[in-house]
Amino acid sequence: MERAFESAQILIEALPYIQKFQNKVSVIKIGGEVIDREELVNSFVQDVVLLQAVGINVVVVHGGGKQVERMLERLGVKTEKVQGMRVTDEQTMEVVEMVLGGIVNKDLVARINLAGGKAIGISGKDGLTLIAEPLDESGKLGAVGKVIDVNRKFIQQVIEEKIVPVIAPIGVDYKGKTYNINADLVAGALASALSAEKLVLLTDVEGVKDKDGKLISSLHAGKIKRMIDNQVISGGMVPKVNCCLEALRNGVHKTHIIDGRIPHSVLVELFTDKGMGTEIYR
Amino acid sequence: MERAFESAQILIEALPYIQKFQNKVSVIKIGGEVIDREELVNSFVQDVVLLQAVGINVVVVHGGGKQVERMLERLGVKTEKVQGMRVTDEQTMEVVEMVLGGIVNKDLVARINLAGGKAIGISGKDGLTLIAEPLDESGKLGAVGKVIDVNRKFIQQVIEEKIVPVIAPIGVDYKGKTYNINADLVAGALASALSAEKLVLLTDVEGVKDKDGKLISSLHAGKIKRMIDNQVISGGMVPKVNCCLEALRNGVHKTHIIDGRIPHSVLVELFTDKGMGTEIYR
Amino acid sequence: MERAFESAQILIEALPYIQKFQNKVSVIKIGGEVIDREELVNSFVQDVVLLQAVGINVVVVHGGGKQVERMLERLGVKTEKVQGMRVTDEQTMEVVEMVLGGIVNKDLVARINLAGGKAIGISGKDGLTLIAEPLDESGKLGAVGKVIDVNRKFIQQVIEEKIVPVIAPIGVDYKGKTYNINADLVAGALASALSAEKLVLLTDVEGVKDKDGKLISSLHAGKIKRMIDNQVISGGMVPKVNCCLEALRNGVHKTHIIDGRIPHSVLVELFTDKGMGTEIYR
Amino acid sequence: MERAFESAQILIEALPYIQKFQNKVSVIKIGGEVIDREELVNSFVQDVVLLQAVGINVVVVHGGGKQVERMLERLGVKTEKVQGMRVTDEQTMEVVEMVLGGIVNKDLVARINLAGGKAIGISGKDGLTLIAEPLDESGKLGAVGKVIDVNRKFIQQVIEEKIVPVIAPIGVDYKGKTYNINADLVAGALASALSAEKLVLLTDVEGVKDKDGKLISSLHAGKIKRMIDNQVISGGMVPKVNCCLEALRNGVHKTHIIDGRIPHSVLVELFTDKGMGTEIYR
Amino acid sequence: MERAFESAQILIEALPYIQKFQNKVSVIKIGGEVIDREELVNSFVQDVVLLQAVGINVVVVHGGGKQVERMLERLGVKTEKVQGMRVTDEQTMEVVEMVLGGIVNKDLVARINLAGGKAIGISGKDGLTLIAEPLDESGKLGAVGKVIDVNRKFIQQVIEEKIVPVIAPIGVDYKGKTYNINADLVAGALASALSAEKLVLLTDVEGVKDKDGKLISSLHAGKIKRMIDNQVISGGMVPKVNCCLEALRNGVHKTHIIDGRIPHSVLVELFTDKGMGTEIYR
Amino acid sequence: MERAFESAQILIEALPYIQKFQNKVSVIKIGGEVIDREELVNSFVQDVVLLQAVGINVVVVHGGGKQVERMLERLGVKTEKVQGMRVTDEQTMEVVEMVLGGIVNKDLVARINLAGGKAIGISGKDGLTLIAEPLDESGKLGAVGKVIDVNRKFIQQVIEEKIVPVIAPIGVDYKGKTYNINADLVAGALASALSAEKLVLLTDVEGVKDKDGKLISSLHAGKIKRMIDNQVISGGMVPKVNCCLEALRNGVHKTHIIDGRIPHSVLVELFTDKGMGTEIYR
Repeated sequence: MERAFESAQILIEALPYIQKFQNKVSVIKIGGEVIDREELVNSFVQDVVLLQAVGINVVVVHGGGKQVERMLERLGVKTEKVQGMRVTDEQTMEVVEMVLGGIVNKDLVARINLAGGKAIGISGKDGLTLIAEPLDESGKLGAVGKVIDVNRKFIQQVIEEKIVPVIAPIGVDYKGKTYNINADLVAGALASALSAEKLVLLTDVEGVKDKDGKLISSLHAGKIKRMIDNQVISGGMVPKVNCCLEALRNGVHKTHIIDGRIPHSVLVELFTDKGMGTEIYR
Repeated sequence: MERAFESAQILIEALPYIQKFQNKVSVIKIGGEVIDREELVNSFVQDVVLLQAVGINVVVVHGGGKQVERMLERLGVKTEKVQGMRVTDEQTMEVVEMVLGGIVNKDLVARINLAGGKAIGISGKDGLTLIAEPLDESGKLGAVGKVIDVNRKFIQQVIEEKIVPVIAPIGVDYKGKTYNINADLVAGALASALSAEKLVLLTDVEGVKDKDGKLISSLHAGKIKRMIDNQVISGGMVPKVNCCLEALRNGVHKTHIIDGRIPHSVLVELFTDKGMGTEIYR
Repeated sequence: MERAFESAQILIEALPYIQKFQNKVSVIKIGGEVIDREELVNSFVQDVVLLQAVGINVVVVHGGGKQVERMLERLGVKTEKVQGMRVTDEQTMEVVEMVLGGIVNKDLVARINLAGGKAIGISGKDGLTLIAEPLDESGKLGAVGKVIDVNRKFIQQVIEEKIVPVIAPIGVDYKGKTYNINADLVAGALASALSAEKLVLLTDVEGVKDKDGKLISSLHAGKIKRMIDNQVISGGMVPKVNCCLEALRNGVHKTHIIDGRIPHSVLVELFTDKGMGTEIYR
Repeated sequence: MERAFESAQILIEALPYIQKFQNKVSVIKIGGEVIDREELVNSFVQDVVLLQAVGINVVVVHGGGKQVERMLERLGVKTEKVQGMRVTDEQTMEVVEMVLGGIVNKDLVARINLAGGKAIGISGKDGLTLIAEPLDESGKLGAVGKVIDVNRKFIQQVIEEKIVPVIAPIGVDYKGKTYNINADLVAGALASALSAEKLVLLTDVEGVKDKDGKLISSLHAGKIKRMIDNQVISGGMVPKVNCCLEALRNGVHKTHIIDGRIPHSVLVELFTDKGMGTEIYR
Repeated sequence: MERAFESAQILIEALPYIQKFQNKVSVIKIGGEVIDREELVNSFVQDVVLLQAVGINVVVVHGGGKQVERMLERLGVKTEKVQGMRVTDEQTMEVVEMVLGGIVNKDLVARINLAGGKAIGISGKDGLTLIAEPLDESGKLGAVGKVIDVNRKFIQQVIEEKIVPVIAPIGVDYKGKTYNINADLVAGALASALSAEKLVLLTDVEGVKDKDGKLISSLHAGKIKRMIDNQVISGGMVPKVNCCLEALRNGVHKTHIIDGRIPHSVLVELFTDKGMGTEIYR
Repeated sequence: MERAFESAQILIEALPYIQKFQNKVSVIKIGGEVIDREELVNSFVQDVVLLQAVGINVVVVHGGGKQVERMLERLGVKTEKVQGMRVTDEQTMEVVEMVLGGIVNKDLVARINLAGGKAIGISGKDGLTLIAEPLDESGKLGAVGKVIDVNRKFIQQVIEEKIVPVIAPIGVDYKGKTYNINADLVAGALASALSAEKLVLLTDVEGVKDKDGKLISSLHAGKIKRMIDNQVISGGMVPKVNCCLEALRNGVHKTHIIDGRIPHSVLVELFTDKGMGTEIYR
């Protein structure tokens, strides 16, 4: 009995957050390494379904690098890396699209629907949602792309129908050429285009850390440039914080880099005062 | 941190109940004795606001016998009782209406609104919501009434505007005469008229008990007549169970008699498997 | 037969006024002394129902000082007056709220509904419609308040549902404290907030009079300050004309102070060229 | 001042009729002889505009025999009559259509619009509103037609846009051939198709009279056959009463044959207890 | 079989034009001389019905000078001409209105409806669509008028109901006086008021010609003044090009003067790259 | 010029078909062998975009056996066939899903969008559109499934938003297991669930042939059983005709088996009298 009333108490504590985010858009990016772990993807799916149930408009963007890598191996496709990015020739691109759009995306969608939510899988080709061009103009990276336009109206139609769009980071150009885009960039572009309330990036680290390796809970956007210059922020974290800065510049209210390795980290982030990981704000 | 994840777990457990009751009507009756205790009325109000926030259409019906009694005393009005019911002459009726509609109702409404909900107070005179006639045709009970018609459309307009109607148990007849109606009866009549999913009566006992004084969690409607005949159910509990039976006959799915003296009993009843008090079902 | 055609003629004469006020808001304040007289309240109710029937959006604000006074006497509550205003301690406030919100308001609402209209009673606590603070900061007047905010959206929801809001002049602050507000002020605040076409104050005098005691039909707002300075306008009429001035400043088109002691004065005011009482315009 | 209050009284008396007919359809037929008299057509137009203003859905059907006759004369077209009906050859039909659809219809429409109403002229060709076939299969009567189908949906679209359809009694068949139809028949067919509340035929007599020549106020449908057999009802009145009977059979609530020579006879009929002329009911 | 695939090819070629004009307004004027020829009016009607079917909002304006002339002759009405325009006294005006509004308009409407479209005939009196005043202030031309105001909202209501308004060039002033207006002017005024995508004038010449008599396909608005001054453009073509200029100034995108003597010239103009006749653009 | 008018003529001939199918659903299945040929998939995409543009609600279902086969080969996955159906183990299923949902589906979607249409790719996992169970209960065929339920509401939401759903024939059960379903069966199930006007199966043969090998244009459903028994219909054509029969039983109006190897065969089928291939009707 006691547990029941404790539960009631906890529900009541969630109320102000429900009221705050209701009918607003939160874009959440989940990476391939989180998707790979059954218990993590399940807790993530539950979080999404709960958020949808209480009236928060969630847009999910997923990665899937690990899953792509495994398939490339199985297919015996060899790929080269330039500056940490995989050069994506046509054959590789086909595998990327197939794995992200055909397997990872649909698996996530099915899980959300089976958990009682209502979701649809969308690649950048659906409704020409993500218009892309080569990230590197020289062509050295092949089909690695960046978002140059978002079909905001199309995504909003989906949101207004109370369906969660689950976005695969595949872009297309006006000639029909397909692009492989970093999922963080896609999440940032969507959050900007939709004037989202929140952008949440689930990673496999705790968050942004200071020079002593201590987690920073709350970080002003203005401090980031110097931290990158001083290499306090470095490696894979650099594009993530840049993506947050870009979203903030475009009107997103709050951005978060949180630890996807902890179950229900999305709910904790959205529904508690303290939150999780690092909040970057203006 | 641990507490945060426990909280997330509890929110996730609430999900199936949110999904089940969303966009459906739950009529909840709260008695004067519960309203009288600050901490109880506050937890009740939080429950209502949370239910509204997650998309459940709550209709609140309140009593207020204690509050009426105190005012009658202050005014020096003497009243007689017949079969446990207060004979309500014109002067008494004025006090009843004034206290229930002017004080108790508006206080509850203000609390819900101040807690972030959206509520409006409604007596049976608003939109002629509750049409009444004398409970006792002989006239011996004066203005003690029963509901003979509900303006369902009016209440539904309020519900569709996502406003919680808070109903004072005051009826009116087509000549403008005012009636004092038992709040349980009003709740039952409203649940019936609105084809509510649930009717919940908050009382100041644990629930219905068996002949050994043990709480019955779940009780089939078919067993009740005999329990009354055998006086296992007796006293003030009789009208309450009858009110549940009537609602069930009119298509309400589940009815509950629960202990209003325990904080958040409404949330516990709606959002846990085990529930509280006694469920009466068909 | 002749009477029939005269009637037709009169209906036709009302046409331009119906066309002019249709789908616009008229705020009408009725005082306690008019409500007290059965034949006057009845003719007023008929007027309101007719206006609603022909598509004019009426908002009714009522007073009830006389009714409050009688109840205070019955309860043996003694009150003091400062500058003509009743000092309202907590006990007095409870009586005021009870009488205005529980009796006077609901009685008016029931009459409108029984005459074929559609009305709902609203106190400032419903939907936090009227947010108040003490009129006198020193606290000398107790719970005598003034309107500092109106929940315009809430009232408009009611109006759009084609329901007449009947407003009791009870305010509330964000801590839940209740205030007694002058009904003229409430009417003025509502007319301002709703950008009403008309504000009509029913009083128990003929209207504003000139220094020779002759009724002024039409009065420019610009002349009023001097008339007050010269005490041509004095006593209870001062707050009424100030309330009109305030409403005009806030965009209300026309304001009227008319004689509520004459049956159907509202209809005559709205539906004839000459109108009644005193029109104050910019 | 007295007149003002009498006016108010009369407006109040109209209220129950406004409430009764609001949002329902009344089909009113006005003949050419009434249209011909400036003061009568003006009072009729005022009635229509008032009815529209208070929310009653009016459909006007007009004749125009006199106007046609004058034009035929001016054009020197000679026509023959068979059984009181003008044989309508192609040349005659062109004149009929031109006068009814081009002049009489548009004049009535312009008057309603200029008086503050909102009307559109519709002949049976607009939206194929009135599908016709020859009244006399032998072909002896030429283009004299009868209604065999009404495009109910088209007229209802107009009504829902709160526009008064003013109907010229011109029909068309699926080959594009034009027909001249008796306006009473058209009014009856429209009232039937629209399940009108009322069908009102304005004529140039007082109403139906009994064998002593006394006006009958209220006449049961069941008595009419015998009255025609006994020639109590005869001549031009026969098709009118038949038209009423047909409408009653098709679900129209009340039908009326009233004296169009008296100004505002429509308003008197709709807005007084006693009404005018003869009511035929089931 | 081959023909079938050629047909498919042609349909596919129409696609970009359908996409371009869908849900936009095209105002098309057809003159009396085109209406007079059965095969031309039929092909025009088919064009209109097809355009409506594929979602293009067509507004038709028709003339009818020839038809009026024939009727004036039959009636023996003599008329004088001043500067090429017929002086329109009251008797003439009646004939004009009768023929245009009663015959030509309704005939066109019936044809469109019978071909499977959905059309309604509208003269300037319907909904006071075309408010007019004398073209020549001196009064020398009588009821020859020009458009001074268009009831845009009324026409748009019709368009939104997916009905083609077929407009007779009859205007009215606020006193109810009727005016005969040049149909080109009416088309121009409507295109301007509706911010049409296209204004198409069907004439009985090929289009605008250069000084050597060669058809100009595409003509910049800026060149027209000089061409009129040099009398390269002269006679009846002058008001037509002025009408196009006026429409362009008011925001119409493209204007066209095309040869109505060629079947399906409207479809060819709208659905082929090359178009027909002369396009005048800014 | 002549060609222009011929074009106009052809557009006019398409009109009755546009009117007939507008706002109705046509389900069209395209097989992997057609998709494989660039010029055929292009003409198919043009047809779909044109149909959408003129207001016909198209639902596309695609196969992709050839594309799957190629990938299986590249991956070196060996599969067995039982009764002509590929046994689909888990590894094979992953490839099937990846190719159909990730490549074929998205390629088709991108083509439609780039041609000016508006399409979204949907697998049975999106919105749980296609609920499946094993085709063969014994489990011998592995993940080869059949449709047991369609989420009609979800597809209709997409259709109402005027988006073409492009369906990959992938089903899911309530445990999340994925199924490979024959695309003809999916098309039949969707046509049934949506009460489609038409079901069109694009194949790589001319249509159903009689015992002399001559194409049958029109075939009554009642004759099919005997033709199968007599092996006039045999091989891969049997499931196709059965799928048509099933759809007809479920209320689909017309079903068609046509030759997808001919460009624009869909347009020819829908927009000409003679049509293409074999029509099967009740």
